[in-house]
Amino acid sequence: MNQPKSGIIPEDRLGIATDLYQITMANGYFEMGKKDEIATFDLFVRKLPKNRSYLVVAGLEQCLSYLTNVNFTDEDIEFLEKKTSFKNVDKKFWDYLKNFKFTGDVWAMREGSIAFGNEPLITITAPIIEAQLIETYLLTCYNHQTKIASKASRCVDAAKGRKIIEFGMRRTDIGAATRGARAAYIGGALGTSNVMAEALFDVPSYGTHAHSWIMSFNREEDAFAAYFKVYGEETVALIDTYDTIQGAKLAAKLPGKIKGIRLDSGDLTELSKKTRDILNQNGKKETTIFASSDLNEYTIEEMLKNDAEIDIFGVGTELILSKDAPSIGGVYKLTQIKKDGKKIPKLKLSKDKSTYPGEKQVYRMYDKNGKFDKDLLAVRGEFDEQYEPLLIKVISKGKLVYDIPTIHQIREYGLSQKEKLPTEYRKTNANQNYAVEISSELEKLTGEISKKYGEDKK
Amino acid sequence: MNQPKSGIIPEDRLGIATDLYQITMANGYFEMGKKDEIATFDLFVRKLPKNRSYLVVAGLEQCLSYLTNVNFTDEDIEFLEKKTSFKNVDKKFWDYLKNFKFTGDVWAMREGSIAFGNEPLITITAPIIEAQLIETYLLTCYNHQTKIASKASRCVDAAKGRKIIEFGMRRTDIGAATRGARAAYIGGALGTSNVMAEALFDVPSYGTHAHSWIMSFNREEDAFAAYFKVYGEETVALIDTYDTIQGAKLAAKLPGKIKGIRLDSGDLTELSKKTRDILNQNGKKETTIFASSDLNEYTIEEMLKNDAEIDIFGVGTELILSKDAPSIGGVYKLTQIKKDGKKIPKLKLSKDKSTYPGEKQVYRMYDKNGKFDKDLLAVRGEFDEQYEPLLIKVISKGKLVYDIPTIHQIREYGLSQKEKLPTEYRKTNANQNYAVEISSELEKLTGEISKKYGEDKK
Repeated sequence: MNQPKSGIIPEDRLGIATDLYQITMANGYFEMGKKDEIATFDLFVRKLPKNRSYLVVAGLEQCLSYLTNVNFTDEDIEFLEKKTSFKNVDKKFWDYLKNFKFTGDVWAMREGSIAFGNEPLITITAPIIEAQLIETYLLTCYNHQTKIASKASRCVDAAKGRKIIEFGMRRTDIGAATRGARAAYIGGALGTSNVMAEALFDVPSYGTHAHSWIMSFNREEDAFAAYFKVYGEETVALIDTYDTIQGAKLAAKLPGKIKGIRLDSGDLTELSKKTRDILNQNGKKETTIFASSDLNEYTIEEMLKNDAEIDIFGVGTELILSKDAPSIGGVYKLTQIKKDGKKIPKLKLSKDKSTYPGEKQVYRMYDKNGKFDKDLLAVRGEFDEQYEPLLIKVISKGKLVYDIPTIHQIREYGLSQKEKLPTEYRKTNANQNYAVEISSELEKLTGEISKKYGEDKK
Repeated sequence: MNQPKSGIIPEDRLGIATDLYQITMANGYFEMGKKDEIATFDLFVRKLPKNRSYLVVAGLEQCLSYLTNVNFTDEDIEFLEKKTSFKNVDKKFWDYLKNFKFTGDVWAMREGSIAFGNEPLITITAPIIEAQLIETYLLTCYNHQTKIASKASRCVDAAKGRKIIEFGMRRTDIGAATRGARAAYIGGALGTSNVMAEALFDVPSYGTHAHSWIMSFNREEDAFAAYFKVYGEETVALIDTYDTIQGAKLAAKLPGKIKGIRLDSGDLTELSKKTRDILNQNGKKETTIFASSDLNEYTIEEMLKNDAEIDIFGVGTELILSKDAPSIGGVYKLTQIKKDGKKIPKLKLSKDKSTYPGEKQVYRMYDKNGKFDKDLLAVRGEFDEQYEPLLIKVISKGKLVYDIPTIHQIREYGLSQKEKLPTEYRKTNANQNYAVEISSELEKLTGEISKKYGEDKK
């Protein structure tokens, strides 16, 4: 009998975690004698999704792990050799892939950084085949984690000091869920329901019981009593299986302190007020109210406007899938080729998809109160003396030169950075663009290259 | 220096690929002496997302791999023991987890099946701790893959015989992308850009070159010529880096047959007509036109209405993220407890979240033309003699009893099933519900349990 396939990504085969055209191009570059050309690529988000004025950067650490380990196994090469489209590929290319290592330089924003449209989150300078083959994996990391960290940050702001826990594991694939929990924590969530995320990333995991616990007992009160017997003060009673008010009354009568009750259906705002009263009347003023059920930053904001008595919001589907903006559209674009020691800046002129050329830096300027004032997209080194450069060198000639922070340090850094972002950009419906200016040197370079391309075409 | 974490899911640690409350409950069941109670859970989608009238089932194979392999390693137990919430857990429970194996029975619809709201896609009967611990992973598989297979199926229908290729790898996490490519293929896509998906699942991978290939050469014509030199007839020239019409003219002048050109920006319908003419005028009538750029079933339908000359649609972001319906909301609900040999059907009465009790079967009825007529959600065995049962036994007492089909067989099965679905349910804006009737026996059972719960409360 055939064994079913797990479909879990094998960690030692990440070379083939890429789009086919990267390998097709790699062979093309190899064949055309371009393998010693040095390419620079920027990864950035062109235009932020609706209602968003900033991003919380996440995904770098997984890229660094990948860049310092990526390789092709014999199994991978055998697999590729068999593809029809590679039937004429020279054996030398397969030998090249067998010895493949990433040897380039990488500049990146720290995870937790606040970033804006058109700003490179990571910049790669490497032999063109290397820089090309790694594109897809880098995009998977940033597009996924930066999206979720940014969404979490919005939910955290909407909660105005109440807590957010990421609860969406079941709504997406296991890997996306687990890295997503990491990203949500970076974005300011208190933790996750996902145990794997705690095991792999040290993101605190939370959870008590489900409706099935309640339903497995003959009576709701028996289910609560049993849970209380096992977990005591740690109990968070899920009270909506049959009737929320009835459930609250039963939970309130448990003989001792309990950590919380949880609402999971109905009008959460109204129910939170009523159940708060029930708890208070039964000497359970310190018992917290936890709410879940298709929550997002918009509903949380609305509920708190209506004085919902909710202490912790469990945000699931909407957070892990960033449901109102399922894609942030990060792209990876060639900005320079270095050939025979000469730098040739590159750009793309496609409609609505044009790019800025050359090796760049993002500089951040502050106002007198220490708040973010504006950013400057500039030529690398242009303002190193005057302003804060956001891109720092993390890999040099293939070697890690960056001290990896803990996840807790990343989260703290992110939260502290966001405090410097003026509040108008932190609203749930913030659509105004933060000022990202183009430096005069970068404008000049862009103009020159565009003009040059125009003249070539004449 | 700390090593960066890859965040790749370790295949031998899938026991902890779950929500914390599953483990909290597992210990609770253990502690309360409920470990020999046998629970039945159904996994189903309550209400399909907007514009959808059917689902294409995908995700079973990965669940079967998981169910026949899931375990807890010593490392997992050590990790769990250290959690504060487990400080009072009896050592016997950790011993139980050390020896954990799934020993239950599983019924499921074949992958590629057409399913509707409220129909169990998979049903588990197992000791309650086992049935509970596996919930989250099963949901990750079905919620992710069934969502994407269903979205792919919509794009395939919209393309009316033209081809669809899944192109969204870079928009999500690596695991989600790869299992997503599998799901898209089951939904009828021709293949994927994702090399890992071919390596792991045998989904055909496609791809040629990106804008960076073009930009790495001084002139667009040099880039095309180089690619043609290396790949000859296999060439698909990406023609929009600078100016699509110019690009088409350059590609059309390549000295020999080429497989295709690719449009990736601008008004694709208009450009497809113009570039078709350019190709035809240059003796390249057989060269296909490939288009991409934020496509989905709605835009594909519109483009073909306007006579777009497009042969293959590359669908990326919108497909891999199912952007118009990022969640299908699959749930996993307790329907029965068997205790001391006695079956006790269970249901949940929460507002808009109620469930049907007991061990169930889905029967499909056909009209005289062999098309789907209606389904019957019934008590298991109720109509085995008259109608086609969709849930088949795939695992018996923990052992696989199902012959795993190849991915190609699954895809063929799915496409053949969809041919039997009346066309009104296959429209891009199909909002009418297919008839899923509740059998009289199931109605009776539901009424009895609801009534009983009501009486208990008096």
